Amino acid sequence: MTKTAAIIGGGVIGGGWLARFLLNGWNVNVFDPDPEAERKIGEVLANARRVLPMLYDVALPAEGILTFCDTLEEAVKSAAWVQESVPERLDIKHKVFAQIEAFAPHDAVIGSSTSGFKPSELQVGMNRPDAVMVTHPFNPVYLLPLIEVVPSPITSADAVAKAKEILTSLGMYPLHVRKEIDAHIADRFLEAVWREGLWLIKDGIATTDEIDDAIRYGFGLRWAQMGLFETYRIAGGEAGMKHFIDQFGPCLQWPWTKLMDVPELTDELVAMIADQSDAQSGHLTIRELEQKRDNNLVAMMRALRSQDSAAGALINAHQSSIKQTVTPDFSKPIQSAERMVPVSWTDYNGHMNESRYAEVFSLAVDHVMVQIGADADYIASGFSYFTVDLSCQYIAEAHAGQMITVQSQIILGEGKKLKVHHRMFAEDGTLLATSDHFMLHVSLKTRRTCDPEPEVMERLVAAARAHAALPDPREKRS
Amino acid sequence: MTKTAAIIGGGVIGGGWLARFLLNGWNVNVFDPDPEAERKIGEVLANARRVLPMLYDVALPAEGILTFCDTLEEAVKSAAWVQESVPERLDIKHKVFAQIEAFAPHDAVIGSSTSGFKPSELQVGMNRPDAVMVTHPFNPVYLLPLIEVVPSPITSADAVAKAKEILTSLGMYPLHVRKEIDAHIADRFLEAVWREGLWLIKDGIATTDEIDDAIRYGFGLRWAQMGLFETYRIAGGEAGMKHFIDQFGPCLQWPWTKLMDVPELTDELVAMIADQSDAQSGHLTIRELEQKRDNNLVAMMRALRSQDSAAGALINAHQSSIKQTVTPDFSKPIQSAERMVPVSWTDYNGHMNESRYAEVFSLAVDHVMVQIGADADYIASGFSYFTVDLSCQYIAEAHAGQMITVQSQIILGEGKKLKVHHRMFAEDGTLLATSDHFMLHVSLKTRRTCDPEPEVMERLVAAARAHAALPDPREKRS
Repeated sequence: MTKTAAIIGGGVIGGGWLARFLLNGWNVNVFDPDPEAERKIGEVLANARRVLPMLYDVALPAEGILTFCDTLEEAVKSAAWVQESVPERLDIKHKVFAQIEAFAPHDAVIGSSTSGFKPSELQVGMNRPDAVMVTHPFNPVYLLPLIEVVPSPITSADAVAKAKEILTSLGMYPLHVRKEIDAHIADRFLEAVWREGLWLIKDGIATTDEIDDAIRYGFGLRWAQMGLFETYRIAGGEAGMKHFIDQFGPCLQWPWTKLMDVPELTDELVAMIADQSDAQSGHLTIRELEQKRDNNLVAMMRALRSQDSAAGALINAHQSSIKQTVTPDFSKPIQSAERMVPVSWTDYNGHMNESRYAEVFSLAVDHVMVQIGADADYIASGFSYFTVDLSCQYIAEAHAGQMITVQSQIILGEGKKLKVHHRMFAEDGTLLATSDHFMLHVSLKTRRTCDPEPEVMERLVAAARAHAALPDPREKRS
Repeated sequence: MTKTAAIIGGGVIGGGWLARFLLNGWNVNVFDPDPEAERKIGEVLANARRVLPMLYDVALPAEGILTFCDTLEEAVKSAAWVQESVPERLDIKHKVFAQIEAFAPHDAVIGSSTSGFKPSELQVGMNRPDAVMVTHPFNPVYLLPLIEVVPSPITSADAVAKAKEILTSLGMYPLHVRKEIDAHIADRFLEAVWREGLWLIKDGIATTDEIDDAIRYGFGLRWAQMGLFETYRIAGGEAGMKHFIDQFGPCLQWPWTKLMDVPELTDELVAMIADQSDAQSGHLTIRELEQKRDNNLVAMMRALRSQDSAAGALINAHQSSIKQTVTPDFSKPIQSAERMVPVSWTDYNGHMNESRYAEVFSLAVDHVMVQIGADADYIASGFSYFTVDLSCQYIAEAHAGQMITVQSQIILGEGKKLKVHHRMFAEDGTLLATSDHFMLHVSLKTRRTCDPEPEVMERLVAAARAHAALPDPREKRS
């Protein structure tokens, strides 16, 4: 198969498609008569190049060749995939499809990014409509995997199969919509929510900001990892989906929303939903589904903490309110960590991954820094410590859900130098690991080493002197 | 303030509330006449104890005392917060509220978990209705932060302020709903989506499974970190929210869904939405919003990879298809990593956190293991390597978005022992870090060391012999 894709119509959607193909090693030809097209596509491509490779732990294939073409013919003539993303007007789309079928190879997949039209509407007047289908993406196209693949009754099954295979090879998820319908599937939900949002704003119930909070701190987190029905299956409990509908179905007839046309919950419809839900999730018990949901939520919410964003920002703020400010007491080792091992920290060996021990020790050394006055304010003033050498000795396995503590002792605190020895313990006192941290004080402006500011230097020296009087924890090991 | 909460009505919702209070150090009294209440609450509490602490890098406060009470009076008499989660029937709720106000302290916050009733409906017939409000949570209550705080016009402002402060101290997000309305805010969206889902299933367009995929691989990911309006603000581009509505507003009048009652997009309504969106997100340019969105998506999607779930499972599968199987060639060091540094790997020093270097080296050693035949199948057969000692020497800073490679050389491969030396390079050849890995071969059944199986032993010895003939990379450092 020639790995060349033709992008007809740039902009945010066409540009996103282009990036998916290009960054997965395809050559891409673009045709867009907009004189601004190259700039606009360049902006989307820059976004995609920045973040798409970050999803993976391996390098993506070498980028293909990107060519801006002067004519549609030139763009499509050697393409295995032609993606149409022109404005949402049927007359424009018909003109473009007439040209595509005139010049594209007969075996090319022809996909439309339309969010509203049915494929049969696009195929009107074509000589070879069998290669045409809707392949509807979601913004940002370079990150979100969903593609609604919607054939019409006259789209060939071979073309659909080929499209699904190519989309999968691009890291996308082809959702085969078996029956064409205006707006496909996802946009019907988006429109239902948009419409409800307009009512809430119009009636002065909520602002855009409040609506967004109602989504991202609640059901948005659920829906990023399970959808609507698997989530509600859990709500139904062991009694199952039928029980959930019996319990909550009637609510739909209450005067909750402005829009009242609701399908009647016949026995037949309830059974259909329950059967589909069994086929989807019946291999897991409710308890297993709960744990899967909760593990996903923990992993995602912790991830949002790294960006200090959405639910992650809330957890960061809450953690700050929990963490007591302890008056430094250097007459004993510093308790520099006390925490639970999250589910997202374990690996194929069924225990905490070695790098997460390093993460615990890294957070422990942050705590030691705070104790000697090298805290967030000090870092904001332009100084910090950089690690130059870290070693971990793994003694026993730690597991998800386990509480662990770390005791840290300053081994050397002199000028720029800071050496700390850590011991990690299980709740029962088992020594899990030890670590030695060698750090140098730096200026964050020059990124070079320098002596600490006087107030930190003073506390460091006092702390080091006090800890030097304690037994050397490293002697126990040999 | 006495830190005692009373939970009236257990089950999944009451149990979730209970867990939030208890795990944040509150004493909790429960009243639920259901003989199964203790078992049911115990199940929810077990879930919460397993995962809520995993969100944090510090220990939560010591748990409070949990007491199952025989009477409602006993439960509420010393409570600073009373949370009602009894069945959704107004007559039952009225009886419960009469008892609560008879026995609870006059300054206690009284919250209802109702998803449908307005607070003014709950307050009917009460002598002291001013402490009563809706505090509506979302499942799982022990993880999701959203609480809709809905006062009626006669609820006291003091009670609302106190409720918001307490909820925040529990790590929750109080969304103050300023105007009471049936079903509050979030459930109105959920109902709109549920209703549309029923139509799609009834009409044979999609199954529950397909609908869930349409959500979790697309807009669900967007909504976990931004809501509806901030997401669409980006779609509007620099021209802003007004442009978005001008462009997409008319779609709502198309025959997309079964339900057609849509607010008229008057100039006034459009301006109201645009102004609210400016107030919400106007401090960020569209480019900044795009980057924030993309960073959040990368962090969350990588987090889902750790669970091999939802979009994370797709990326894992795609990565497997990208990663070429390379015939082992031990005549030179092994290129054991080539990848980009994700945004979620950087820390307050503005560079890749030390523990992520360890993560890269950990993945590098996995690659070395595959090269000597200790691959996923071998691990599934019950054998693996455990690291006993890891050291990292940090030489230069690595940053988000940077491409890095790792060269690995086997230093010792003998019996159970495997020592590997790694060098991490930037694209321009700069040496970023080195690392030494000392691993022992183990049985995953006994968790004890043992010799590798013959096929691995043979490849290990051959690889170690070949690498011993190469220059020792460690000599360059001293």
